[in-house]
Amino acid sequence: MKSKVVTACMIVIGNEILSGRTQDVNLNFLAKALNELGVRLTEARVIPDVEETIIETVNECRGRFDHVFTTGGIGPTHDDITAESIARAFGVGVVIHPEIEERIRRREAPPEVMQARMLMARVPEGASLIDNPTGGPQGFQIGNVYVMAGVPMVMQAMVSSLTKERLGGTDPVRSRSVGAYLGESTVAAALKEIQDRHPDVDLGSYPFYRQDGYGTNLVMRGTDEAELEQMCDEVREMIRHFGSDPIEE
Amino acid sequence: MKSKVVTACMIVIGNEILSGRTQDVNLNFLAKALNELGVRLTEARVIPDVEETIIETVNECRGRFDHVFTTGGIGPTHDDITAESIARAFGVGVVIHPEIEERIRRREAPPEVMQARMLMARVPEGASLIDNPTGGPQGFQIGNVYVMAGVPMVMQAMVSSLTKERLGGTDPVRSRSVGAYLGESTVAAALKEIQDRHPDVDLGSYPFYRQDGYGTNLVMRGTDEAELEQMCDEVREMIRHFGSDPIEE
Repeated sequence: MKSKVVTACMIVIGNEILSGRTQDVNLNFLAKALNELGVRLTEARVIPDVEETIIETVNECRGRFDHVFTTGGIGPTHDDITAESIARAFGVGVVIHPEIEERIRRREAPPEVMQARMLMARVPEGASLIDNPTGGPQGFQIGNVYVMAGVPMVMQAMVSSLTKERLGGTDPVRSRSVGAYLGESTVAAALKEIQDRHPDVDLGSYPFYRQDGYGTNLVMRGTDEAELEQMCDEVREMIRHFGSDPIEE
Repeated sequence: MKSKVVTACMIVIGNEILSGRTQDVNLNFLAKALNELGVRLTEARVIPDVEETIIETVNECRGRFDHVFTTGGIGPTHDDITAESIARAFGVGVVIHPEIEERIRRREAPPEVMQARMLMARVPEGASLIDNPTGGPQGFQIGNVYVMAGVPMVMQAMVSSLTKERLGGTDPVRSRSVGAYLGESTVAAALKEIQDRHPDVDLGSYPFYRQDGYGTNLVMRGTDEAELEQMCDEVREMIRHFGSDPIEE
């Protein structure tokens, strides 16, 4: 029996990604982590640091997906408006989270610096902590929205503290990849037949171009290991049928 | 006088990005290219290879932004459903584009391979060509939607054929970056004052952590070079005020 798919949407909040200054790597990290947690990343959005846009996007996405993960905008400067915006999206006030406050006060600082740091303890009323085990900034969860930092090192620490139980994840999503020095047009018809035989496994086809020739990577994803292996065998057989050798990654 | 901002939304169509198998690099490339073309990348979405999702997303975004750029799903295999989906989004049929057909037929192939390749000549009725000067697959434009390949090398060739005139772009967006070994909390209040004095320049603050210490990169973006320089000077002065040295990237 197939288990229900638990869906997730990621919202990357950051002018620096949209301006091209910074190459996002958080989406890729979260996607892989969610595979292991039995949650399917179903959509992602990159939006600017604009309050109305954050509110609108969060409210749309939290209604459409089981979970919403945001990154970015939880620091202490004027462009860090995520906590405030998410509170407004939920129609609640902003409060100082006592556990975050306590952690911030552990490190001494001049009053004006401490005042800026305390902005990082502000969370929407009713939010719970997303622990950052490295001791840096903490994230928070409100409803089905998980709010995390944009700095990859910090974001990754926060993701590592999420558990399958917390997210209600189901079976982990597994993938297999087999390549061949065959053009996509050569294998297109045969691939469609294989996909049609296994509707529960997602079969993707990705061309590659290398110095020694061009070819296609065939990527299979699903939760049923036996069916994945079966499809993998069929793909290998198909490749040999066209007179080529399967390349195992 | 400020010129009107021309907005763009990017739609990355690709299960391989959402599954974590592939790290997207097209968003970053397009963002930088659009800066030069005087177009502002205002939002991006990553969606799966699902026809209804593509149709819904394209129709929402083409109404909200001046331009929409899609990447992915224009190859010859069963998971390449972008052309068909965009035709349905526009409520038009799919036709063979004579210029693309002619280019495909130049390279000989067995009939079944040629048949698969011809799928890449299918465009929504009324679409015009986005030239790929390297001679590989071609993209197309319909209305304000620009449909490009997902393979970065091919996508980049297509983007390079777009012009400011075609997109109605205005002034290029310029950026300056100054760093300092100062924590965000230290500079937060002063930064806000600088931002308030220059509402037309976007001032972003990004923490960094390096082996020799932590600090903050301050990134300024705008179309007015003189105002950018003015803000840059104020940022440098602010950094010196806190007893640190501006780091020019």
